[in-house]
Amino acid sequence: MSEEGPRKRPFWYFVGRPGGGNGAAGPCLAGGDVAMVLLLPEEKPMSPQPPAAPGMPLVDVDTPALIVDLDAFERNLRGMADFAAQAGVRLRPHAKTHKSPEVARRQIALGAVGVCCQKVAEAEIMVAGGIKDVLVSNEVAGARKLARLAALAGRAKIGVCVDAADNVEEIERAAADAGTRLGVMVEIDVGGRRCGVAPGPAAAALAERVAASRHLSFAGLQAYYGSAQHVREANERAQHIARAVAHVDATLAALKAVGLEATVISGAGTGTYEHEAASGVYNELQAGSYIFMDADYARNKRADGGPFDRFEHALFIYASIMSATVPERRVLDAGLKAVAIDSGMPMPWQLPGAVYLRPSDEHGNLDVAACPRAPARGEKVLLVPGHCDPTVNLHDWYVGVRGLGGAEARVESLWPVAARGALF
Amino acid sequence: MSEEGPRKRPFWYFVGRPGGGNGAAGPCLAGGDVAMVLLLPEEKPMSPQPPAAPGMPLVDVDTPALIVDLDAFERNLRGMADFAAQAGVRLRPHAKTHKSPEVARRQIALGAVGVCCQKVAEAEIMVAGGIKDVLVSNEVAGARKLARLAALAGRAKIGVCVDAADNVEEIERAAADAGTRLGVMVEIDVGGRRCGVAPGPAAAALAERVAASRHLSFAGLQAYYGSAQHVREANERAQHIARAVAHVDATLAALKAVGLEATVISGAGTGTYEHEAASGVYNELQAGSYIFMDADYARNKRADGGPFDRFEHALFIYASIMSATVPERRVLDAGLKAVAIDSGMPMPWQLPGAVYLRPSDEHGNLDVAACPRAPARGEKVLLVPGHCDPTVNLHDWYVGVRGLGGAEARVESLWPVAARGALF
Repeated sequence: MSEEGPRKRPFWYFVGRPGGGNGAAGPCLAGGDVAMVLLLPEEKPMSPQPPAAPGMPLVDVDTPALIVDLDAFERNLRGMADFAAQAGVRLRPHAKTHKSPEVARRQIALGAVGVCCQKVAEAEIMVAGGIKDVLVSNEVAGARKLARLAALAGRAKIGVCVDAADNVEEIERAAADAGTRLGVMVEIDVGGRRCGVAPGPAAAALAERVAASRHLSFAGLQAYYGSAQHVREANERAQHIARAVAHVDATLAALKAVGLEATVISGAGTGTYEHEAASGVYNELQAGSYIFMDADYARNKRADGGPFDRFEHALFIYASIMSATVPERRVLDAGLKAVAIDSGMPMPWQLPGAVYLRPSDEHGNLDVAACPRAPARGEKVLLVPGHCDPTVNLHDWYVGVRGLGGAEARVESLWPVAARGALF
Repeated sequence: MSEEGPRKRPFWYFVGRPGGGNGAAGPCLAGGDVAMVLLLPEEKPMSPQPPAAPGMPLVDVDTPALIVDLDAFERNLRGMADFAAQAGVRLRPHAKTHKSPEVARRQIALGAVGVCCQKVAEAEIMVAGGIKDVLVSNEVAGARKLARLAALAGRAKIGVCVDAADNVEEIERAAADAGTRLGVMVEIDVGGRRCGVAPGPAAAALAERVAASRHLSFAGLQAYYGSAQHVREANERAQHIARAVAHVDATLAALKAVGLEATVISGAGTGTYEHEAASGVYNELQAGSYIFMDADYARNKRADGGPFDRFEHALFIYASIMSATVPERRVLDAGLKAVAIDSGMPMPWQLPGAVYLRPSDEHGNLDVAACPRAPARGEKVLLVPGHCDPTVNLHDWYVGVRGLGGAEARVESLWPVAARGALF
């Protein structure tokens, strides 16, 4: 830092050689190399440093950190892939959960047809990370975003959802300007009361509008029922999805009446996927949270009344006890900026009797009055997030740990949460 | 993107010349230059692109975006600076609110003595941004973090809080290893039931331990009462702070008994700062939220029962209507990943009758049944966040707008949320 205060001018060069030559490029520019000056002020870090390094024992990882139990994670990946294969449905996992091409590539290696995203910026990062088939399972409004989406369709197979005729016109213009072709799913509201046109004739009319567009293909129906995912009783979830299936059936009939066919019926989440898969109507599953399993999904019940345990908790927040001034309370260094609480408080892991409560921005209180052995100041603990998606979005790095729970737990991988903050 | 999939190896060089020479450095390395290979894979973006450009009309800003009403923001900055000057107390605003050296420099230009941070990583970014005096108003646990903090004390005046003797020992070791000196505030629990040692003799004993350390200075008392900030009734807030003042007085007496003096008594937030300032005991205010004023602070009441309106809403989320399929509902592109809801839902701004509800990760529902004129699909609206600090932490850029509310509203500045995600 200079004594005169912060630098006002950029002071780094980026020097790259097309083709990615690295050591070979050497420190001097040659013809064809790319050099540019970084425009950000010095105070903007290039990227936050990871809280760990590969090979490090878990206990040395700095806190708060986003931990992936790689063993459980891999079992979760395999479990859903096997289920989809056996059910004979396509799996298109939702990348809004993980925001990581590293994870997406592993899902695709096990048979997924591609991924879903919710935002154009997420889709851009997935395509940059090598994903060839991305459905933006969401409406996209505005010329700037649609221009980017249409451009992306020149690099990968891109789909998007619509629920309004004027949005179809916007997308058609963007695709025409970019000279690309977009697959368009008509989203129907199957009960979630969010986006989606009414099932039946209204949806069919919108599909006709899509099919008549020169640069768009009618790709099928988006029929996701978000609010059914967290209904606790299995039979109630089944009833919700049965109603959704009826809405899809009515829409398929209306499509048939106008001479259209929906080749893909896409939907489902980690709470309901078994019902969509068994429906005989849905042929593509969009589940995302199954890879990590948060505390809220674990509150769902199976048909026999037991806890929904088909997938394992694989995502944790690692936190330190930063204060321990009274016997009944510990203060953690993980608060609202480290763990999402919209679906309930995080759950202390393997710490019987401890309850996380009263989070503030950078602190979490741990009530340890009922703990047989309360952790001391400086010790580190694991928390299971209440809701994985917005928790992941608070972090820049996944710290992949092998052997979590054992004495030899070690950091194996560091993956960037590449699409963290990819909001638009 | 290459056809073979994502690049697996780094392919950028960073080349810099000490002293910041820019055009003069040229493309070839010379003695003393710094070159290093970027270790991030290509898929990790250097930094997310801002959603706007200077000069752009507000309506062209991409959404969701974090908007600062520069006019209101500057009035808020000035209002607190003037208050502190007139009250004869030091102002050390909390940078956990804004996470931006740009904002910190403006606060200091108006008389603030420095800033507070909650995390070592935040302090590092403030110091890199030219801030010369940073108090980490929080306990810091662990050798890795403390080594960084102690190193930082070689570049700026750095303070930290303690509430445990073994933590004092840790900090002393770190400062000795770094060859630096740290100011240490003894934190007392004045009622917040979070961190802090008991007021009185226990605090004095801890201060003695600090004062006896070779590399630490006893800098004063940290006496922040977080949970009093959001008590709605003014007379109840006054009673809470009166009790806090009694705890401070008891501690000052205990310090005197052991021959120590606390030169700085620091605390207060946007909800209570008038009471601390009037106490005759506190001499440093740590308020942060006053610069932006969220919807939750606006629910506090003045002594006369009116709304707490000394500061103006200056922070907004700009969001687009992405779906409008039924008359009574609009769907916004700003959900849990764009706006924090821990202190209540965001408040639609200048949109009478509209209520934000049922947020999901990337969506917010707007009930517009009571709206005289509901916005159409594609229109953009402003929301006042329920809680500014964790909302800011979701974004990478502040979009500073001049003339917000008028027809000529335009983007004037783009400031990085430099310490976003600076968790440890």
